[in-house]
Amino acid sequence: MKDEIITLGHGSGAGLTKKLINEIFDKNFKLPTLDDAVEIENRTVVTTDAHVIKPIFFPGGDIGKLSVTGTVNDVSMKGAIPKYLLITYIIEEGFPIKDLKKITESVQEAAEEANVKIIAGDTKVVERGKADGIYITTTGIGFLSKNINLTSKNIQNGDKIIVNGTIGDHTVAIINARENLNLTPAPQSDCASLNNLVQLMLKSGNIKFIRDATRGGVATILNEVFEDTGLGIIINEEDIPIKENVEAVCGLLGLDALYMANEGKLVSFVSGNSSILLEEMKNHKQGKNSTIIGEVTNEVKGVYLRTSIGGLRPLMMLDSDPLPRIC
Amino acid sequence: MKDEIITLGHGSGAGLTKKLINEIFDKNFKLPTLDDAVEIENRTVVTTDAHVIKPIFFPGGDIGKLSVTGTVNDVSMKGAIPKYLLITYIIEEGFPIKDLKKITESVQEAAEEANVKIIAGDTKVVERGKADGIYITTTGIGFLSKNINLTSKNIQNGDKIIVNGTIGDHTVAIINARENLNLTPAPQSDCASLNNLVQLMLKSGNIKFIRDATRGGVATILNEVFEDTGLGIIINEEDIPIKENVEAVCGLLGLDALYMANEGKLVSFVSGNSSILLEEMKNHKQGKNSTIIGEVTNEVKGVYLRTSIGGLRPLMMLDSDPLPRIC
Repeated sequence: MKDEIITLGHGSGAGLTKKLINEIFDKNFKLPTLDDAVEIENRTVVTTDAHVIKPIFFPGGDIGKLSVTGTVNDVSMKGAIPKYLLITYIIEEGFPIKDLKKITESVQEAAEEANVKIIAGDTKVVERGKADGIYITTTGIGFLSKNINLTSKNIQNGDKIIVNGTIGDHTVAIINARENLNLTPAPQSDCASLNNLVQLMLKSGNIKFIRDATRGGVATILNEVFEDTGLGIIINEEDIPIKENVEAVCGLLGLDALYMANEGKLVSFVSGNSSILLEEMKNHKQGKNSTIIGEVTNEVKGVYLRTSIGGLRPLMMLDSDPLPRIC
Repeated sequence: MKDEIITLGHGSGAGLTKKLINEIFDKNFKLPTLDDAVEIENRTVVTTDAHVIKPIFFPGGDIGKLSVTGTVNDVSMKGAIPKYLLITYIIEEGFPIKDLKKITESVQEAAEEANVKIIAGDTKVVERGKADGIYITTTGIGFLSKNINLTSKNIQNGDKIIVNGTIGDHTVAIINARENLNLTPAPQSDCASLNNLVQLMLKSGNIKFIRDATRGGVATILNEVFEDTGLGIIINEEDIPIKENVEAVCGLLGLDALYMANEGKLVSFVSGNSSILLEEMKNHKQGKNSTIIGEVTNEVKGVYLRTSIGGLRPLMMLDSDPLPRIC
């Protein structure tokens, strides 16, 4: 890689990002895990995320709200209860203070909703043209109850795969806002904190593993699970919850919602009878359209989509995401 | 502030930054402390910093090393022993991967030297022209031993003020590199982790309060202590350790080293007989030029410099730092 340069694909969260992590970061840092969040002493779970979304204000949220929910979700996917956030702003000279105020209010509102507290921060300003408005990095700290250990190692044949609602909403909201597609009503981002929903799910005792389907989408998570465990996965096209306008944009632009970033959706691997859990999820604000989309199976080696006409189509790991700056 | 815009001064760490913190951040977040680092459960201390230094490579360090030492130091100033770092990169499209590798190796080297471990990270890429090479945010986590509680509330009349060496080195190294002053030998940044020195100092039992003299320099820390405590401070011009080349650049450009950012210097408030402590500090790699520069006194109300001819000159809190992107 020595004469190469960074491309937008290196930030996509897909294959090129993983290459960068493996060849540069992990080689130096020898990270304890490549998961988003890490457990340290005293059942403490920590995570960190940079946010560069464009536009910074979008239907359903803004960069402030996203910075909170994204980090809250990374802590939550470990099964931990997020409690604190630390936040840094990198701001471009000339940025309107009223927008900074609005974003900061969004941060606080989202923090209150997720029951987390902002405890420290830092602000840097760079010259005009050296940033794109504002970039925000958030670090989340949460605490794990005893007996919770969500890892892909728990997953077994026969486990069901549940998503908590429609996929692709965030990406389509951003495409619509960024490319001025003028869809009406404007699609809304699903940007939301899932800590509460996860805690509800954990009560079932049946949860093996959860991941939030951000960059790379549902298909990337399924591929990571296959890479980690070697277990085959089939999901059913007709069971995947997807809004009409998202389907329309996918058709129009040749995109696949299964690879689209979400900001309020999780993919969970669940054992045993999942019907009670599914009902409880459907009664939760963040789980209304929860659906079993597939299962872990030794029928296949890899990740496959059973199409509506019954065929099996492989869902590969992509190298890159066509849409930069989605979060 | 509603029709105002962000200026470089808002990122200076001086008065304008404090205004932003008070009027926007603290108003929303109700921060537990305006210190850089915060104590949470289990004697855990956390801090976060964004780094936007320009140029990214400079004599004595680079943005990778600085990101580690700066955050290690913020944790250390609380008296805590830093243990973990989380790191995010925001990279501009087109950035050479060999530079990313070099920076990442610096991060790892500085982390090893400070005995901290990088445990998690995130990478985002933005389009060409939307960042300036690379910005790095680091979050530090450390642990406090029992009985350590460094706060400005501990400070009393008669306490001595010690710095651990020459001031202004980092800023002059950056000015020289950025403005092509071509000073020879090129001034070196003092960029270094101080966790080890701080732990040595704490053994004396005489340390009341320590801060690292980064943005805003020594004078800003002294003003913050005066604001917090109402106690007067006099420092002596002829006792302030300063290198000849730094003095020369200050004279040339009309700058004051007392307001310059350092990256390996601390200001400590010490009670009792400080001569043994001072000797021990001088034997430490990061404290060779340690000096008592002044003391806390009820002779004055405010922060004053006793000049070499014996007069008292007030050292005010500045609104802004003349040099953006110093860290």
